Amino acid sequence: MSFEAVWWDGDAVGYVDQRVLPHDLVRERAVDVDGVVAAIATLAVRGAPCIGAFGAYGVALAHALHGHGDAFAAAAARIREARPTAVNLAWAVDRVLAAEGGAYLDEALAIHAEQRAVDRALCEFGAALMPDDGSVLTHCNTGPLATGADGTALGVIVAAHRRGKRVHVFVDETRPLLQGARLTTFELAAAGVPATLIVDGAAAATMRAKNVQAAIVGADRIARNGDTANKIGTYAVAIAAAHHGIPFYVAAPRSTIDFSIASGEQIRIEERAAGEVRSLGGVQVAPADVDVYNPAFDVTPGHLIAGIITEYGVLRPPYLESLPDLATRPALGLLERLRAAGDAR
Amino acid sequence: MSFEAVWWDGDAVGYVDQRVLPHDLVRERAVDVDGVVAAIATLAVRGAPCIGAFGAYGVALAHALHGHGDAFAAAAARIREARPTAVNLAWAVDRVLAAEGGAYLDEALAIHAEQRAVDRALCEFGAALMPDDGSVLTHCNTGPLATGADGTALGVIVAAHRRGKRVHVFVDETRPLLQGARLTTFELAAAGVPATLIVDGAAAATMRAKNVQAAIVGADRIARNGDTANKIGTYAVAIAAAHHGIPFYVAAPRSTIDFSIASGEQIRIEERAAGEVRSLGGVQVAPADVDVYNPAFDVTPGHLIAGIITEYGVLRPPYLESLPDLATRPALGLLERLRAAGDAR
Repeated sequence: MSFEAVWWDGDAVGYVDQRVLPHDLVRERAVDVDGVVAAIATLAVRGAPCIGAFGAYGVALAHALHGHGDAFAAAAARIREARPTAVNLAWAVDRVLAAEGGAYLDEALAIHAEQRAVDRALCEFGAALMPDDGSVLTHCNTGPLATGADGTALGVIVAAHRRGKRVHVFVDETRPLLQGARLTTFELAAAGVPATLIVDGAAAATMRAKNVQAAIVGADRIARNGDTANKIGTYAVAIAAAHHGIPFYVAAPRSTIDFSIASGEQIRIEERAAGEVRSLGGVQVAPADVDVYNPAFDVTPGHLIAGIITEYGVLRPPYLESLPDLATRPALGLLERLRAAGDAR
Repeated sequence: MSFEAVWWDGDAVGYVDQRVLPHDLVRERAVDVDGVVAAIATLAVRGAPCIGAFGAYGVALAHALHGHGDAFAAAAARIREARPTAVNLAWAVDRVLAAEGGAYLDEALAIHAEQRAVDRALCEFGAALMPDDGSVLTHCNTGPLATGADGTALGVIVAAHRRGKRVHVFVDETRPLLQGARLTTFELAAAGVPATLIVDGAAAATMRAKNVQAAIVGADRIARNGDTANKIGTYAVAIAAAHHGIPFYVAAPRSTIDFSIASGEQIRIEERAAGEVRSLGGVQVAPADVDVYNPAFDVTPGHLIAGIITEYGVLRPPYLESLPDLATRPALGLLERLRAAGDAR
């Protein structure tokens, strides 16, 4: 079984309600602009690239319902603001609005198709690095729910599985928000890939006890020297992998690379609310007034990363040499994009 | 503020109900054998050494209520079986029952006093290793609630604080059972030691970002070569500490050292129920049928341990040389024990 997180559904925008995962797989249809905005605002649809594609379809839906004019402009603005901090959403809405000849749905489909093509290429390059028969370890959520397409690190694992490799996945639960426990285990089950959930603290012990052969994660931002910001806990996985002589891979599209920064020291780390750590699913698990340090991300230095898997191939250290080349490469071809879109639909 | 987890209360056994921590600090009195058995069976009193002292007092209480005879013997047997797997409990009950001249309460007090003396000596040796002004990181629960006395790793930190050292503690929440979040933060607050709670995955990033100067943990079992079994997640902390050049200490009484085993390979690791990982405080956080690997402990190799802090002093590597000496040392003197008992009461 395979699934998509968001899709164009003829006269509506389809989506998986991520709030009720992993307990229920509920497919919904946003049939009007209110539905699109609500799905984004309530986190029924989450994952920055996923929100981008969803919002793009939302603008196309608004056009189908309202045509051109003030109502359409207002609807697009509402979608664009549904989550003001999601950069991908504003970018996607603006790109659709700028579509030549008002071909909004075509542009939304193109955005989604490009996302699919990028993920697909990345996943195929990465699949070659996965063991033919063995275990890998991953952290956080990097599958279809996160990107709206095949995913990055998780997509690599699934692609390896589809090639016939016998890959078993150990999934870090990924506190505080448990994306690994809630979403990654669900995605792996949907793809038919055998998986075992562990607490984050067990990753190092699991590497030793269970003969883990690779670790693979996604990325939120990559500096020119390969320093990689990703979900908190990633750095610990990288250190443990190095200690055990296990290759640690990062899978991310070129759009994740920030060519403007020389190293991870220039990446500001967001600190999130203490309540995420003090409680879980509404259950208080620590003194209500305890001080909390809750960084959302950490930075893994490039020298701990055996390879950065992109849609252009696998970059190898030293990244100061291998990575800047990528900045000048042409975007994945339109033909390839359209073919990918055709295959996927 | 300081507190004890268990104590003799004149005509009852006093205890802190650990089930309602950290939300409420509730002191209870077990006034009969039913109360003693219930406190143990319901986990109101937990921590192996702590249960041992509590059970010892329970036998003394049974004697005060029932005198000698069948009712007393039956009561002691019930206490002994209240948690069949807790070795300390059976050991303490048997030792009290064997007290010369039926001086049961004296023997119970002696057991508890020895525990205090051991913890106190260990904590003083360890305090010297703590930074004068800086941060340390700990994992799981090793304070008064765990040992019924000053504690081990946490006791070391508190002792350093009482010496006037300005020690700040980063506390791993310690999934799956969250002993760090629930109990260690509470104990540190009670002792007035500044502390900050983090998720386990953030330990490595915290070491780098917050200038952590030492890591210190307890132990469940130590082999002759220093290999140390402790709560799952400890090994990851040790690896991260080594990566950052931070000394990693283990604090444990001699009774934790298993002189009969040459290395950690001989330590069997208990695997616990999947439900501990799949859910939290009754909240399901993962698919109900997901496979789980839930080892309760991991083994940190001796070569990653900068020092093992015992009641006889700090052992240094190589442990194959420094550790066996301890087997032949006399027990801490009775005079010292009695003095410690006097001080503590």
